[in-house]
Amino acid sequence: MDIEVLTIGTELLLGFTLDTNAQVIGQTLSAVGVRIVRRTTVDDDPRRIREALERALAQTGAVLTTGGLGPTNDDITKSVVADLLECPLEFSSAVWNQIVSRFAQFGRTPSPTNRCQAEVPRGATVLPNPRGTAPGLWMEGPPGLIILLPGVPREMAGLLRDEVVPRLKRRSGETPILSLTVRTTGIPESRLAERVAGVEEQLPPLTLAYLPSLLGVDLRVTARALPEVDARRTLERAAALLESCVGHHAYGRDQDDLAAKVLATFAQSGRTLAVAESCTGGGLGWRLTEIAGASTVFLGGVVAYHNKAKSTLLDVPPSALETHGAVSSQVAEGMAIGVKNRFDSDVGLAITGVAGPSGGSPDRPVGTVWFAVANDDGVTSQVVQLAGNRHEIRIRSSQFALHLLLDSL
Amino acid sequence: MDIEVLTIGTELLLGFTLDTNAQVIGQTLSAVGVRIVRRTTVDDDPRRIREALERALAQTGAVLTTGGLGPTNDDITKSVVADLLECPLEFSSAVWNQIVSRFAQFGRTPSPTNRCQAEVPRGATVLPNPRGTAPGLWMEGPPGLIILLPGVPREMAGLLRDEVVPRLKRRSGETPILSLTVRTTGIPESRLAERVAGVEEQLPPLTLAYLPSLLGVDLRVTARALPEVDARRTLERAAALLESCVGHHAYGRDQDDLAAKVLATFAQSGRTLAVAESCTGGGLGWRLTEIAGASTVFLGGVVAYHNKAKSTLLDVPPSALETHGAVSSQVAEGMAIGVKNRFDSDVGLAITGVAGPSGGSPDRPVGTVWFAVANDDGVTSQVVQLAGNRHEIRIRSSQFALHLLLDSL
Repeated sequence: MDIEVLTIGTELLLGFTLDTNAQVIGQTLSAVGVRIVRRTTVDDDPRRIREALERALAQTGAVLTTGGLGPTNDDITKSVVADLLECPLEFSSAVWNQIVSRFAQFGRTPSPTNRCQAEVPRGATVLPNPRGTAPGLWMEGPPGLIILLPGVPREMAGLLRDEVVPRLKRRSGETPILSLTVRTTGIPESRLAERVAGVEEQLPPLTLAYLPSLLGVDLRVTARALPEVDARRTLERAAALLESCVGHHAYGRDQDDLAAKVLATFAQSGRTLAVAESCTGGGLGWRLTEIAGASTVFLGGVVAYHNKAKSTLLDVPPSALETHGAVSSQVAEGMAIGVKNRFDSDVGLAITGVAGPSGGSPDRPVGTVWFAVANDDGVTSQVVQLAGNRHEIRIRSSQFALHLLLDSL
Repeated sequence: MDIEVLTIGTELLLGFTLDTNAQVIGQTLSAVGVRIVRRTTVDDDPRRIREALERALAQTGAVLTTGGLGPTNDDITKSVVADLLECPLEFSSAVWNQIVSRFAQFGRTPSPTNRCQAEVPRGATVLPNPRGTAPGLWMEGPPGLIILLPGVPREMAGLLRDEVVPRLKRRSGETPILSLTVRTTGIPESRLAERVAGVEEQLPPLTLAYLPSLLGVDLRVTARALPEVDARRTLERAAALLESCVGHHAYGRDQDDLAAKVLATFAQSGRTLAVAESCTGGGLGWRLTEIAGASTVFLGGVVAYHNKAKSTLLDVPPSALETHGAVSSQVAEGMAIGVKNRFDSDVGLAITGVAGPSGGSPDRPVGTVWFAVANDDGVTSQVVQLAGNRHEIRIRSSQFALHLLLDSL
């Protein structure tokens, strides 16, 4: 089955808003074998929305739109569709009641501007949206299939998964496009390519893509036009082959998060963790606590941003700070031991570095970051030179720290 | 001047990768009056890349591509363009030397797979890329203008700003599309719309868009087809009008960050800050330290994730934890006072809440978050009920905390 995606919003065309929905729609539809034949973006102009809808319906017969269902004046998608299909908008008390009860959940009452969100083109199927006030709409008629979803990402994603995919699956009988990702970190793309070179010849009919990000390089293998069972088996074999080339730099698959992997590995051995952060300012703690249930492993941490805090809260001897400076093996090790003792954890990890843009020196340029791990056997430290701007150095530091924790077990 | 954008990468079409470049290109080009007439995405297939290039050149005469310039086998954009323009690829020692010295910066040597990145179609202008190994390319010929940029976001953005925009500005004499954003937080979109309703009629010829996110709702006013001086004056007036309607919920403009605003305001009054975080796990510290120079204000914090740490590191009486629970006014206030004392800061802020998905109870459902601010005058606390999943509640908590700090001064 083919479909077009029409993204509505002036802010998208001008780049004011990041189009995260495009990614979610691409992933979700390709996983069920629905092929997106074109993605078009238009602004909040009724004439251009109508034109794009008519073209998509004439050429492909199915279109999924996002955006323009909110309570404000620039939200006009629904009325354009109602005009196009000649199905007048009608007030739905059922939808209105859902809106009222959603507001009540947060101790509020809807305002008059929300009333238009309860209007539905005659004959449309309402797709309930438990995450927001604007429901999705599903309309089938002589010109084809029109699916309207709100633009707010989490509402769009929920409706797509819970309401749209099950309905599309019933219509589509095609081969899904399946993929599997091997996530790597701590190894640059070109070196990874050399390690993987030998394997690449064995991969077809699969294709391999390198997807670099601040967290590392993902290796994605994709199967098309293979029956689902064969595709899954071939992908699994390819992933295992890639993982054996990449060694300990491969830390997971698909959406696996390194922080979750660290927590799971610590939990398995019943160990607890505390972290002392300087240049990452709390970012490592944030990543660990993004994972629900982190509290069984992660006891907490100290953000020792000011040097004085490294002494008063982490017991780093002021003499070590004076002699070696805050970005040094001695201070990193002192912080790791200090946070382990203060939290009475099995493992203490410390990060101290120069995130920039200022603060660098010839022997400690921006990007110099010291890491230390303390456990009952003692403490070890290492230094890394990381590339990028302040934000990138900090993200890379937290990822490096997580990989170090995984390797330390 | 009109241009087409061609985004190359299978991973984009299938939604494996988020297309952040689309946003940056939209913003950057519209700010200099270059209109994007279409955005197309194709996969890493030489035939389809060529077809899309030919169509863009025939219809618009100018195309900017991103992606496919890396060192791996799926990076084929350059050879397709070389074929299309009949300009053979030639090895450039100048480009190669830049690649070698970039690797040397990080103590590495390029691998043989990097050599192809030094190949340049004959006659192309090389756009130097100090942020990565693949340079951009600028080619003008009978079929039109072709600009090739790498897909890695920071490299693309740097080349666009430093190399492409100055060249495009020389060619284009058009009216820029200008906009100004008023950033708000702590007020829902529908309530904001009511406050702003009276102003909306005074805005034309400007247009107003509501852009909700986890951080709040941005109000964006946009001017088109106005001379630049008039546009800037009209936008300025509109923004001031909107800010007066919105009151203290308006915290900044355009890319202003609430954390930066808090730091600047503290710095102005010479005050220092320390934070005690439970459910945000370090996220508030991370946001504050994303800002270079945070250290003059932000001394650090304690991530008291485990209850024991609230007592041992923040001096919250264990009896308060037992009697009232960790998510309570008493514990939030104890944490704020404790962190202020431990860091000897002027202000201490504390966050403790139920981020979910588990841990909620009838009287403290998921999303219940207590905030406290301690200063030399004493301590105050308040509770908020936040919507969303774990991640969203945590982001909203850190934003609410920052707004509270701003209001507290």
